[in-house]
Amino acid sequence: MALRTVEQYKESLRKMRPNVYKFGKLIEDVTSNPATKLTVEGHAQIYAAQHDSKIQDLMTTTSHLTGEKISRYLSVIQSAEDMVANCKMKRLMFNLTGTCTGGRCVGWNCINAMWATTYDMDQELGTDYHERLKKWLIQAQKNDISISGALTDPKGDRTKTPSQQEDPDMNLHLVEKRPDGIVVKGAKVMICGVAASNEIFVLPGSGYKEPDKDWSISFVIPRDTKGLYIVETRRPSDTREEEEGFDIPVKKGGITQAYLFFEDVFVPNERVFMCGEFKYSLSAVLNFIMPYRTAIGGCVAGQGDVKVGGAMLVARSNGLSIKPFSDKLTRMVINNETTFGMGVAAATLGRKHPSGVWQPDPLLSNVNKVHVATLPYETSVLAQDISGGIAETGCLPSWVDFEDEKYGHLVKKYLKAKSSAEARARAARLVEWFTIGPGVPGCMHGGGSPDGAKLVIRAQAKLEDKAELARKLAGIEEEIPEPEKKK
Amino acid sequence: MALRTVEQYKESLRKMRPNVYKFGKLIEDVTSNPATKLTVEGHAQIYAAQHDSKIQDLMTTTSHLTGEKISRYLSVIQSAEDMVANCKMKRLMFNLTGTCTGGRCVGWNCINAMWATTYDMDQELGTDYHERLKKWLIQAQKNDISISGALTDPKGDRTKTPSQQEDPDMNLHLVEKRPDGIVVKGAKVMICGVAASNEIFVLPGSGYKEPDKDWSISFVIPRDTKGLYIVETRRPSDTREEEEGFDIPVKKGGITQAYLFFEDVFVPNERVFMCGEFKYSLSAVLNFIMPYRTAIGGCVAGQGDVKVGGAMLVARSNGLSIKPFSDKLTRMVINNETTFGMGVAAATLGRKHPSGVWQPDPLLSNVNKVHVATLPYETSVLAQDISGGIAETGCLPSWVDFEDEKYGHLVKKYLKAKSSAEARARAARLVEWFTIGPGVPGCMHGGGSPDGAKLVIRAQAKLEDKAELARKLAGIEEEIPEPEKKK
Amino acid sequence: MALRTVEQYKESLRKMRPNVYKFGKLIEDVTSNPATKLTVEGHAQIYAAQHDSKIQDLMTTTSHLTGEKISRYLSVIQSAEDMVANCKMKRLMFNLTGTCTGGRCVGWNCINAMWATTYDMDQELGTDYHERLKKWLIQAQKNDISISGALTDPKGDRTKTPSQQEDPDMNLHLVEKRPDGIVVKGAKVMICGVAASNEIFVLPGSGYKEPDKDWSISFVIPRDTKGLYIVETRRPSDTREEEEGFDIPVKKGGITQAYLFFEDVFVPNERVFMCGEFKYSLSAVLNFIMPYRTAIGGCVAGQGDVKVGGAMLVARSNGLSIKPFSDKLTRMVINNETTFGMGVAAATLGRKHPSGVWQPDPLLSNVNKVHVATLPYETSVLAQDISGGIAETGCLPSWVDFEDEKYGHLVKKYLKAKSSAEARARAARLVEWFTIGPGVPGCMHGGGSPDGAKLVIRAQAKLEDKAELARKLAGIEEEIPEPEKKK
Amino acid sequence: MALRTVEQYKESLRKMRPNVYKFGKLIEDVTSNPATKLTVEGHAQIYAAQHDSKIQDLMTTTSHLTGEKISRYLSVIQSAEDMVANCKMKRLMFNLTGTCTGGRCVGWNCINAMWATTYDMDQELGTDYHERLKKWLIQAQKNDISISGALTDPKGDRTKTPSQQEDPDMNLHLVEKRPDGIVVKGAKVMICGVAASNEIFVLPGSGYKEPDKDWSISFVIPRDTKGLYIVETRRPSDTREEEEGFDIPVKKGGITQAYLFFEDVFVPNERVFMCGEFKYSLSAVLNFIMPYRTAIGGCVAGQGDVKVGGAMLVARSNGLSIKPFSDKLTRMVINNETTFGMGVAAATLGRKHPSGVWQPDPLLSNVNKVHVATLPYETSVLAQDISGGIAETGCLPSWVDFEDEKYGHLVKKYLKAKSSAEARARAARLVEWFTIGPGVPGCMHGGGSPDGAKLVIRAQAKLEDKAELARKLAGIEEEIPEPEKKK
Repeated sequence: MALRTVEQYKESLRKMRPNVYKFGKLIEDVTSNPATKLTVEGHAQIYAAQHDSKIQDLMTTTSHLTGEKISRYLSVIQSAEDMVANCKMKRLMFNLTGTCTGGRCVGWNCINAMWATTYDMDQELGTDYHERLKKWLIQAQKNDISISGALTDPKGDRTKTPSQQEDPDMNLHLVEKRPDGIVVKGAKVMICGVAASNEIFVLPGSGYKEPDKDWSISFVIPRDTKGLYIVETRRPSDTREEEEGFDIPVKKGGITQAYLFFEDVFVPNERVFMCGEFKYSLSAVLNFIMPYRTAIGGCVAGQGDVKVGGAMLVARSNGLSIKPFSDKLTRMVINNETTFGMGVAAATLGRKHPSGVWQPDPLLSNVNKVHVATLPYETSVLAQDISGGIAETGCLPSWVDFEDEKYGHLVKKYLKAKSSAEARARAARLVEWFTIGPGVPGCMHGGGSPDGAKLVIRAQAKLEDKAELARKLAGIEEEIPEPEKKK
Repeated sequence: MALRTVEQYKESLRKMRPNVYKFGKLIEDVTSNPATKLTVEGHAQIYAAQHDSKIQDLMTTTSHLTGEKISRYLSVIQSAEDMVANCKMKRLMFNLTGTCTGGRCVGWNCINAMWATTYDMDQELGTDYHERLKKWLIQAQKNDISISGALTDPKGDRTKTPSQQEDPDMNLHLVEKRPDGIVVKGAKVMICGVAASNEIFVLPGSGYKEPDKDWSISFVIPRDTKGLYIVETRRPSDTREEEEGFDIPVKKGGITQAYLFFEDVFVPNERVFMCGEFKYSLSAVLNFIMPYRTAIGGCVAGQGDVKVGGAMLVARSNGLSIKPFSDKLTRMVINNETTFGMGVAAATLGRKHPSGVWQPDPLLSNVNKVHVATLPYETSVLAQDISGGIAETGCLPSWVDFEDEKYGHLVKKYLKAKSSAEARARAARLVEWFTIGPGVPGCMHGGGSPDGAKLVIRAQAKLEDKAELARKLAGIEEEIPEPEKKK
Repeated sequence: MALRTVEQYKESLRKMRPNVYKFGKLIEDVTSNPATKLTVEGHAQIYAAQHDSKIQDLMTTTSHLTGEKISRYLSVIQSAEDMVANCKMKRLMFNLTGTCTGGRCVGWNCINAMWATTYDMDQELGTDYHERLKKWLIQAQKNDISISGALTDPKGDRTKTPSQQEDPDMNLHLVEKRPDGIVVKGAKVMICGVAASNEIFVLPGSGYKEPDKDWSISFVIPRDTKGLYIVETRRPSDTREEEEGFDIPVKKGGITQAYLFFEDVFVPNERVFMCGEFKYSLSAVLNFIMPYRTAIGGCVAGQGDVKVGGAMLVARSNGLSIKPFSDKLTRMVINNETTFGMGVAAATLGRKHPSGVWQPDPLLSNVNKVHVATLPYETSVLAQDISGGIAETGCLPSWVDFEDEKYGHLVKKYLKAKSSAEARARAARLVEWFTIGPGVPGCMHGGGSPDGAKLVIRAQAKLEDKAELARKLAGIEEEIPEPEKKK
Repeated sequence: MALRTVEQYKESLRKMRPNVYKFGKLIEDVTSNPATKLTVEGHAQIYAAQHDSKIQDLMTTTSHLTGEKISRYLSVIQSAEDMVANCKMKRLMFNLTGTCTGGRCVGWNCINAMWATTYDMDQELGTDYHERLKKWLIQAQKNDISISGALTDPKGDRTKTPSQQEDPDMNLHLVEKRPDGIVVKGAKVMICGVAASNEIFVLPGSGYKEPDKDWSISFVIPRDTKGLYIVETRRPSDTREEEEGFDIPVKKGGITQAYLFFEDVFVPNERVFMCGEFKYSLSAVLNFIMPYRTAIGGCVAGQGDVKVGGAMLVARSNGLSIKPFSDKLTRMVINNETTFGMGVAAATLGRKHPSGVWQPDPLLSNVNKVHVATLPYETSVLAQDISGGIAETGCLPSWVDFEDEKYGHLVKKYLKAKSSAEARARAARLVEWFTIGPGVPGCMHGGGSPDGAKLVIRAQAKLEDKAELARKLAGIEEEIPEPEKKK
């Protein structure tokens, strides 16, 4: 199959077995149900973009496996240029959808993480995981499918490891090994874009030791596989998605974050990429977070672009020039370019793994994660600052009131400013949407917490080398070691 | 009447003419309708508190007019101690309701602003506004009513003054003077807590010059007065208020922000406190913002206390000690105490107006406004940081899914951590509620924008005196004036 | 004696035994030696100010012991108003001297700290320390002397308590008790303004337990007492003080920070206020830091005023209007008023100790310490930002080059801008002086470190109360305690 | 000549005509005079490094003109890799010298800026500037000389352009055109590392219009050319450089910033690269600042590494573990990697100029300039925070006192902590040196002010595109243009 069209993509979703729930109801068709429609629309734009001559060079690349033109989301990242393109593509997708299309980028990261990890496993253990992955990937590329990715386990009591939990299901685990495959049980939670995906790529949630080897599993499954129950989370203002009108002004994208319940799910062997090799669970996670934390800077920059634009719209619709806000707009731009740029830098300073996959710099990618966890908030505050009270908490009547027969004319009369009432209302709702509404993508903890990133930063920062530099510069001849612990 | 009870208060609301609308419907009973019930509950706590022996000393004071015990919200603030008590009371109310009870504090501020302004007008113009205000206030105190306050006009095209607007109604204005009163038309927008109030105190929205004298009006009216239409704004996640369960976990308070449409509303003379005296419109506004920006630091500190607590709950319910978060918690505490403390300082460094009202320091109160517009956001980000992904965007299934017969047991199983699923879910929803949900009070622009505060700061900062200090210290004998403008 | 004049003050210093050293030399006359002259000039301004009709009301107060008019620096602080006056006076002194007059304020704080601590000791232990202090203070007030204060011990290896140190002298301690007094040995380091003082008030450096009781000592001694050696530290650009010209542009103030070596110094009993009562050592320290951390906000605000002015001067001397810098200047003002205001708030929310001394709020005063440790740096960076490269590191030729016969005319020619070369040079040197020169007062660690303040903040923040507030608001019925430690 | 050795480099400096002055004196030998010796030592390390097998690959490259191995500082930057190497090399040099070797990097930037600008001029105007530059560069590479660079003019009254100044010399300008060359007059100020350089590359100080064409000049001259007078500025604590001991602990590097007075200096034609082509003056400046603001992030990161190490040394020498400071150290690392990384990103996203020179991204390089103007200050404050009072203002006695016969033993006794007195003193002086001493490199305004960078950011940020993105996302059909100005 060539690169799929939007319609082919949607059709593929419609054909799947319904297993996504929200508000106590099964969603029969994810492409039309209000709870999932917007995220499907967002992901559909990827399919549209790969046929758009202006941007398809960014959206697609050549498969190093088949030599065919494929979606970049299904590629093995092989160079710094590829990784920089990742950052750019994600920025573009946030520009186009206003928010996250996490049902593809996480899965893509999983592919790349396991590309390296399975290679190492095969080299060192003599397994055939890498070959399995390659075969599956060739098919995935051929069918141009959407693949979401799942790492986060419920974890239960965080003072305990998986095997120490009262309930072993608190982390997804192996239940049974069969000749033709494995059976797994547990859950993955807060998973982005599942409803918009054809398949789900699962990674271990953390690095494990021997007692937790049954939790060291990785595989890929159809989203509608038997035994898998998906419950969508409720997000800020999500019931507006069921309403008419512009209280959610953005129809070109949206987020879902699901809880996946694996009730004895069977995975055939050719889709299993790790099963018990606990020593590689940490490497799988690290191989995942490096590219993830690199490219996510492009994501928040892409939404930041929209924040800049949204704030400009509200100000102008009020009759204000943007000039008095130029320092604030500049600060917003600086924030955007910082997360984007740090990703580009992490990409550039990476190295090629023997498997052929390009791995970004671990220090800079984690520094970027910390920026991603803070700068977009400042950008949002600045957007609210520029936009005024009407946007801060979305302080205007609902669309129903806007259109009310009895008093809607009053609502419109008084919402009109420099621009029409509707334009001003839409602009204000846009700012509400991305600062305090359903457009907020949850980037602080998505892909791991900033505190986790700081641990990596410290581990990578070569602090002792810096102390040595300083000691030599200061002409100090004696050693100045870390003091022994107080007793 | 003595200090009213909660029941007396609610009964007074029930007796009023229904004129509040939301989602295209008239709200028949504000005390029970989901759209207004929570804000009424929040305001009701003020009535409960004044009968609570542990806190009634803070909630009540002695009327300097009648010598009777009255609600502090109906008092004329007469000393630094009174103003500090204002800060403390507001912090307490945020502690108790989790959010804003703006249906009382704004009205209170209006009383105090006009107490000074009407005094000056009477002294200088020979009017009898102060006497009118005093008479009305004695009755208000006697009946222990709730009074909201309204300043913000729609403003229309902000490049133009009220009289320059195409539509004169874009700012509330005088339409007709009758022997027994005045008729006004226009709107006030984004007004807090109106549904929970018995009366509404109206101030001019800005300082005006002669052409805008018909916009220089101040008065107080019953909330259900004839010709007044009230439409509530829609806020983040507000439809959850119509639902069962704990997706809104807080039932002890809530916010409403209304648009008030004045369709030729008649105000009897004894309730009119300014009508055309444009020279005093700016003073009315300034007399309002000084105490408002002083005490609002207590508000955000009070919610900040809850943010600290909420973050602790989520962390612990996950099984984590708060120790690794102690720097973050400390930073949150610093933010809280800074806005609270700056209010106390502004109160302390105030001065007594000849009318007897205590007026906080204009410089410090406006500095505080800038802190109020920034620090709570940092506090919220820290709360999300500590609380993790589950709270950041409220990333968990709805209460309906939690209780679902088919898969609710799975939701509960996997939400359980160190604490029960429900406790953890409620804690996470609490953090969502006050960081990205309906509990966010909109303090950045409430009572005026931070940029407006900065203008006052510059005007009050005595920059030239500081340049002189520096010049003398540096032993510079020549003058160093501001350069003439480039041509 | 009435309030001393500047000349009487300087004369008193000249009469003292020389025991201050710098650069390997004994300073014969502190009032004329370049190393100490500027700090004496700064302290002398206090004596001038108390005879200046415009400000003497702030500089002086009435002794509650004798009813006489005394220097405020020798008073027992008895009310919130007194404490606010402390904040204001310190701000004024920084305005007048450009920097710190720490040779008086620390001693004053010691008096007030020990006023409370000796009272408690006498009440609980039956000692007569409070009476001794009172007698000494009456004389000090009568003679209008300058008293510096000393807390910080060298501490040695910080993993060990005083009694655990290899060298017991690493913290100042009791060597011998004699019938008429005590002998002490050790050092106090980084002590401000000693050269400008008549006496030195010594406090224990920390809270101690029983094994460290010999280190729990407090007393006051003449600065030139036998056995006391004082070595001044070298500070940034301090040798400029020995030069002619304006490379140090400020002649009205300056800082010294000395190391005091106590080589078996005898202290007569009537000057001893603690000797072995280790349980009170912590209280002495806490009683010190509360007022200190309250009023130091006035200090940094006072220098901040000069920073604002200095930046304005450089900009204008370059030919630039300050308008494009108004956001930066506003931010500087906000920083200044925040440290000042938080001090006022801590003062206001204090309480009266049974001894009669007013003690500021421990939480707010420590919050202020954190602001003092950070905001002035931001203010300095903004001053450099506005002032440009010429001020950033003082990037202009020396005064000697400015006046050089051969090429001085070129230096002057090219330094001239909108203002004369000298005015511009002086303005630039002023900014250098207070941002990266000898005018930087060292407020981050002065009076204790910000990390120490954070410990107090956490102890005072009532975190568990806040968790309870949140739990009730969220309707959570089960307890959510701190988890037991991981094993 | 091959790559020069340290000795060859120093010898070349010794052979030059003395024309550098400080403190009213001519410096006969820059390699031994205390005022210039340290900066020569710093620059000498570059010559040492190019013979050091571990780092010579970074320090050297292949000339695209001659194919010979040359110093990277004399190369034309031809690819993103070259530009990234620039960032890395500068970081390394700050690691090795502790501070700036600005006598080479600015000159290098000038070469690269004029490489593009002369190319464009020759293409468009038919001049032969590019050929001249090429010839000169081949010789410069062959002789492996040090070249400093000079842009900043005194500017005089900043409300006026060069030709409007009362004194035309306030910006360096053409005085006379002769057949064999030009004569120039005026000054360049605040020029880094001139004393350590063999030649000086001069660029126009700003973009000019026709009336200012005589100020549009660029050329390169020997540092000791006739008519050039160089006066070094005085910097913080610079007289310590004349002293024995470790009060300046760093002997491996140092900064100088000179004022250059051109008293009718003759420049032969073959060394003139612009003379009157005012339209290219702005391009010369922009071509300069892009690579400069890219690589300077490496500089401040390199010093930031030393700040991290220095703070660790002081903490440990006090007997403290660095663990409680890990958040602060992590923040310092984040700051370092951010300025470094943003430079790498700007390099990566650059483009090749037709002349062959690689030009970094203008938006990201200017964003980096803003970070460079702020983050290192935060890093310094953190270093002081960790290091405590002893480092904050260098609060310890001088080396002379340390070694004093009479009381030096006391100084040493009490400075000893976990480490020896000398090690602790050196560590504290190191932190003083780079936070408030002569090691502070003046990066905020070096290479242009952050406000200038913000202007470029706004120009490059494509704000209107972002408004369009937002408008489409929000489904707004009407235009929302910038409002016309208020009349």
